[in-house]
Amino acid sequence: MVSKNQIKLITSLQQKKYRNEHQLFIAEGVKVIQELLASNFVLEHLFMTEAIFDTVPVFQKTIVKESDMKRISALSSPSSCLAVFKIPKPLQLETKGLIVALDDIRDPGNLGTIIRLCDWFGVKHLVCSSETVDVYNPKVVQATMGSISRVTIHYTDLKKYIAASSLPVFGTFMDGNNVYNENLPKEGILVLGNEANGISSDIEKGIQNRLAIPRFGDMQQTESLNVATATAIFLSEFRRKG
Amino acid sequence: MVSKNQIKLITSLQQKKYRNEHQLFIAEGVKVIQELLASNFVLEHLFMTEAIFDTVPVFQKTIVKESDMKRISALSSPSSCLAVFKIPKPLQLETKGLIVALDDIRDPGNLGTIIRLCDWFGVKHLVCSSETVDVYNPKVVQATMGSISRVTIHYTDLKKYIAASSLPVFGTFMDGNNVYNENLPKEGILVLGNEANGISSDIEKGIQNRLAIPRFGDMQQTESLNVATATAIFLSEFRRKG
Repeated sequence: MVSKNQIKLITSLQQKKYRNEHQLFIAEGVKVIQELLASNFVLEHLFMTEAIFDTVPVFQKTIVKESDMKRISALSSPSSCLAVFKIPKPLQLETKGLIVALDDIRDPGNLGTIIRLCDWFGVKHLVCSSETVDVYNPKVVQATMGSISRVTIHYTDLKKYIAASSLPVFGTFMDGNNVYNENLPKEGILVLGNEANGISSDIEKGIQNRLAIPRFGDMQQTESLNVATATAIFLSEFRRKG
Repeated sequence: MVSKNQIKLITSLQQKKYRNEHQLFIAEGVKVIQELLASNFVLEHLFMTEAIFDTVPVFQKTIVKESDMKRISALSSPSSCLAVFKIPKPLQLETKGLIVALDDIRDPGNLGTIIRLCDWFGVKHLVCSSETVDVYNPKVVQATMGSISRVTIHYTDLKKYIAASSLPVFGTFMDGNNVYNENLPKEGILVLGNEANGISSDIEKGIQNRLAIPRFGDMQQTESLNVATATAIFLSEFRRKG
């Protein structure tokens, strides 16, 4: 059974304003919830249509009807479970190792995929400009497939962060140097830009190393790669060489 | 003005059955439609909420109200234009150069992104198993951002196609050889598998070269990369070395 107030609270968490107010977010689907339960995230409550997740204490879970799951879910095809977790306190922003920085990424699927890539390539810190889509947006949480539990995500003034760092800063530009020919270090900041506009001119000023993925087609008409697939190739190059 | 019969026909094209019956598909958004108009695709009709696309003959276009656009669109936030194109006749299936083969890719966004990657990396032929999601699915057309006009997509019995080819065949497996250490040729077939199950055992038998992208994280828990981001990294490696 889900009360009216619970439905109201849970659906409100689809909006950033209410996530901030309550310091809670939702995660859906067995795999994502499993990974979050196995990590440092603190569960508030778990709703499910069948009895799964034996390890969750009985006061923290409720079996609900499918019709109720439809009401609380942010998905068009709800999964068998939805969990409400506490938003963790921000951790210290580190500036060592390889760091990915996002300048105004707007698409939740792109942010989720980039978090998954950071996890695969051992990037522990992802630094986002304040305008970047919120990591606790249900679509982002979904797209990370649980990697959100292993990558620390920070929101900050990206320009100041870059200016204050002593690491070499790399940015991706259409007219950058061929990434295959560049020496790439183990430590550095890799900046990726907005889906439509690329890296903003304000951030561009702080970037010393301009990188590009060369096109290989004859026709050379493809406008650009999607930012998530470009991130995949850049991280592959950094890790291969670094 | 859009007639009831037009609305019925256009919305029916969201289903593969009716696309096959009418040999028509829909494309939405200025950029995608522009690219298709500039290519060999044959326009059937164009609907738009404002007068754009000056070059399209007057008999082939209709200005419609936003309320009508909402009715015919497959998108939750319709664009200002929707075009109906003819599905082209299948071209000869070639087996030279670098070819990407998809074994049962189900997600329209993944197929669209892979087509865009093929375009960027100069892969002209994409061969799909019969179970792979239909390329004329509106979500695929959308995700290709126009690249669908520059990559030829074939649906066939993938097992037979691989068996009949004389090119070296590469497949992606979790336990494959580190792709960074392998010599990769200019010509070959690169097989990518289903999102949940990978490459099927039937197809696996025809693959001589097993490749993998190594993980770099300490925790080594990320289950797998998304198939589209994995394709990005494999194509980058083939083109860098080939």
